[in-house]
Amino acid sequence: MACQYDMAELCFHAAKPMGSQAAVDLNAVFRKGDRAWRVKGFYAGQGEYRVRFLPEETGVYQYEISGIVSDRGKITAEPARAGRHGPVRAKGIHLYHADGTPWVGLGTTIYAMLHQEEALIDETMDTLRHSPFTKVRLCLFPKHYHYNHNDPAHFAFLRNAQGEWDMDHPDFAFWDAFEKRLAEMDGMGIQADLILFHPYDRWRHSALTQKQNLAYLDYLIRRFAAYPNVWWSLANEYDLCPAKTMEDWYGIEEFVAKNDPFRHLLGNHNCFQPYDPSRENITHMSWQTKQISRIPEMQKRYGKPVLIDECCYEGNLPETWGSISGREMTARFWRTAVLGGYCTHGETFYPDEKEIVWWAKGGKLAGESPARIAFLRSVLESLPGPLRPRLTRLQRAAGMTDEQIKKLLSEPVTQQNIFTIAIARMGTGEISRFAAQESCFCGVCGPDDAPDAVIKYMDFNCCCKTDLELPDNGSYRVEVLDTWNMTRETVLTGVRGKQEIPLPGREWMAVLGVQETP
Amino acid sequence: MACQYDMAELCFHAAKPMGSQAAVDLNAVFRKGDRAWRVKGFYAGQGEYRVRFLPEETGVYQYEISGIVSDRGKITAEPARAGRHGPVRAKGIHLYHADGTPWVGLGTTIYAMLHQEEALIDETMDTLRHSPFTKVRLCLFPKHYHYNHNDPAHFAFLRNAQGEWDMDHPDFAFWDAFEKRLAEMDGMGIQADLILFHPYDRWRHSALTQKQNLAYLDYLIRRFAAYPNVWWSLANEYDLCPAKTMEDWYGIEEFVAKNDPFRHLLGNHNCFQPYDPSRENITHMSWQTKQISRIPEMQKRYGKPVLIDECCYEGNLPETWGSISGREMTARFWRTAVLGGYCTHGETFYPDEKEIVWWAKGGKLAGESPARIAFLRSVLESLPGPLRPRLTRLQRAAGMTDEQIKKLLSEPVTQQNIFTIAIARMGTGEISRFAAQESCFCGVCGPDDAPDAVIKYMDFNCCCKTDLELPDNGSYRVEVLDTWNMTRETVLTGVRGKQEIPLPGREWMAVLGVQETP
Repeated sequence: MACQYDMAELCFHAAKPMGSQAAVDLNAVFRKGDRAWRVKGFYAGQGEYRVRFLPEETGVYQYEISGIVSDRGKITAEPARAGRHGPVRAKGIHLYHADGTPWVGLGTTIYAMLHQEEALIDETMDTLRHSPFTKVRLCLFPKHYHYNHNDPAHFAFLRNAQGEWDMDHPDFAFWDAFEKRLAEMDGMGIQADLILFHPYDRWRHSALTQKQNLAYLDYLIRRFAAYPNVWWSLANEYDLCPAKTMEDWYGIEEFVAKNDPFRHLLGNHNCFQPYDPSRENITHMSWQTKQISRIPEMQKRYGKPVLIDECCYEGNLPETWGSISGREMTARFWRTAVLGGYCTHGETFYPDEKEIVWWAKGGKLAGESPARIAFLRSVLESLPGPLRPRLTRLQRAAGMTDEQIKKLLSEPVTQQNIFTIAIARMGTGEISRFAAQESCFCGVCGPDDAPDAVIKYMDFNCCCKTDLELPDNGSYRVEVLDTWNMTRETVLTGVRGKQEIPLPGREWMAVLGVQETP
Repeated sequence: MACQYDMAELCFHAAKPMGSQAAVDLNAVFRKGDRAWRVKGFYAGQGEYRVRFLPEETGVYQYEISGIVSDRGKITAEPARAGRHGPVRAKGIHLYHADGTPWVGLGTTIYAMLHQEEALIDETMDTLRHSPFTKVRLCLFPKHYHYNHNDPAHFAFLRNAQGEWDMDHPDFAFWDAFEKRLAEMDGMGIQADLILFHPYDRWRHSALTQKQNLAYLDYLIRRFAAYPNVWWSLANEYDLCPAKTMEDWYGIEEFVAKNDPFRHLLGNHNCFQPYDPSRENITHMSWQTKQISRIPEMQKRYGKPVLIDECCYEGNLPETWGSISGREMTARFWRTAVLGGYCTHGETFYPDEKEIVWWAKGGKLAGESPARIAFLRSVLESLPGPLRPRLTRLQRAAGMTDEQIKKLLSEPVTQQNIFTIAIARMGTGEISRFAAQESCFCGVCGPDDAPDAVIKYMDFNCCCKTDLELPDNGSYRVEVLDTWNMTRETVLTGVRGKQEIPLPGREWMAVLGVQETP
């Protein structure tokens, strides 16, 4: 039996491939009504061939298989099991499961989690199960870096007699183990943001030929593309990979997009210069940055979801990227979430000689932010829909074009327009830098003229009160949230219009107005 | 008897002026050797005329007075009294007293402090006396704004029969009271950064004619220019004054620079766009900004001292500009100081019905930052000289020109240059935004090849250790400072070269290496 949103698998036995064990001749077409999905099967070792499919609709799919194996038949996808919402897709600046449920996106980072010993991976999975995270960024290739000196038990491919990677020979033990964990994550509602390449390498995975790159991706996609929770992250820090040109990246991007029958999310993560999110195959901006206040600018520029896929890590490493406090990590999540972006966590406490650091290997979480991220998750899940930014006056000004500025500056200066004119005089570049320092973040969900919810995150400001601008119609409940102490308290009910809300004069507060259901 | 660095005053009695009581005909020339100072005297009321002079050298000055009063004579300036260092002047990116003592610049803001009742001013002066602050920013004209609704007892000028300001009639009670406080501040080693204009007004001081502006400044300069601790700040938020054009500001700037015989520091404070610090008369950048990490950029661009003359205020107001924590204020002071800039404090706790807020009216300080600023002062005073930035790799990259970037990008990419090339690919604008997010600040004093001191401020990073790069020669003592808990502990002595320094994994730490005297 197959189910909507679950991977369906057809299994065949035949003779071992004569040539490549990766690029086997096994092609399938699945048809439903006038639609068709072309899927390649893969060799799984021990004479076993598999064809995987992800039904996104209920009903009957006819299939036809050719190549090493010939077969035809049908699978019937029953309605999704309880709690199954399907793969995550981009729509505008937001991400939704296939069934329309907004994806509450709270990521974490465990780059080399599946290159560790079984017992440690078990511990990591257990930690994830009890964590708020709905996405993990993790690598296919192992990692060589500070605190990352161990070899994995298995690599994705075997070496040939010359000691070079042989893309015709997947190491099935690696792939079996990897996909077992993918399925576990899927069961836990966790998206696997699979990092296909990265520069932190001593095994020459980062310096394969482009032919080898594509051979690897071909096997990867045949094998993993039908997992509903898989995303493709072309790289971690694509721009720090000296062996790859931009043409190589475009080739990789094209290959993945073209070969994935299920159109999984496709991003590419930067160190410095973002990989161009306007490219057609790129579904979202996967941005390493501390410039969280620029999320609205990027949402507007690209019309795609903005994921802050690295914003430093909670910990105490000597490096600034690995030593922010739990408070700062929590704040970065709130800033991002209120603006309708999606933030990704990581944890980097200086390890003992076993060198187990969450951000690379997993294990247990020790930081202060995960509990607060769980609180944020509960708040986001209580909202009627995904948030988008409501810009402050300055943030709006930061979006002025050169033409708008020119027009403004031609107007006579008055008491009324002096503020805007003074901003305009800075010019676009300086306005944007100025606005980047704003420390109040506001988001709304629902229609512009009658939002279902308005949320204002006060960040490090210690205000004794604040204004919350609710619509002049409807009836709202107002809550004061302490994002650090994880409390929410209803302070007003049945109100509309601009409200003055008393606050305790501490950092990390938020104010939420939600439309009351009659 | 006159003293070097003290105001000298000549006093004459004569008939009341027939016309203007401000623009009186009273001119003096002071000569010493082949140098001459042209000074205008002023009318102080009650038939009293005064000529004020500021001797910056010891020795005999011949003077000659003409106009309403004629006189000639000499004054002899004795060596400076103990603890007197003379007016503050700019030299490169730093500020020094006239005798060469580096000015340890820690400002505060009390805009309308001298428009309050005597008892409150007394209290403010007492608070200042026990505070770490070495500068106060304060206005000549009273202030109308939130929590500022009281009229002062006296204005700088009287009104005419039509109720308009009459620049020919100073209100001597105002000037007498004002200068009494200037002198008190001088005695306390506090610079008075006099704000000449500002937009927060209900009395039309911000909308005088340019002729009135200059008449006011003429009297001001005659009267105050010989105070050693006076600075001229053309405005608070010059760019929010609708009644003044840029030409007006240039005229005001020119007038002050030309008429001040003692060349006091001259700045102009912005809300949005900084007043161009490259202008010849402008001695320093007086910058309202939260972009503290850009201090090195501005030091390099203008070659002048950079004063962060507003960086938000410690308090709990509803506005973001008035609600940062003591921790954040302290951090802004440290970031600025380590980069060789000069930061200015203010305090804005929501007041009771008496509306006494430090930032406008003075009174008592209630915040957590002043004690920490005092600690910072003790650290700065213990250093062998003023700090200047030692840039991180990224901060240096932020200074790349378009030409340098073009050259870099024409080089073949290697493992060695990938990092710099990846930065260069961002282009100057994005590099600078990226670098603005750096949260580690390093400063040095003394010669580049053998600095006397190296200080590294860790900001909000919670590192368990850090590297401190000391020169390979010499012998250094290393201290770990907790800038919040106000402790310093010597952790190494007699060391040189790169040192790994253990840290407690908390925020707000600093590491200091100082050359040991043999």
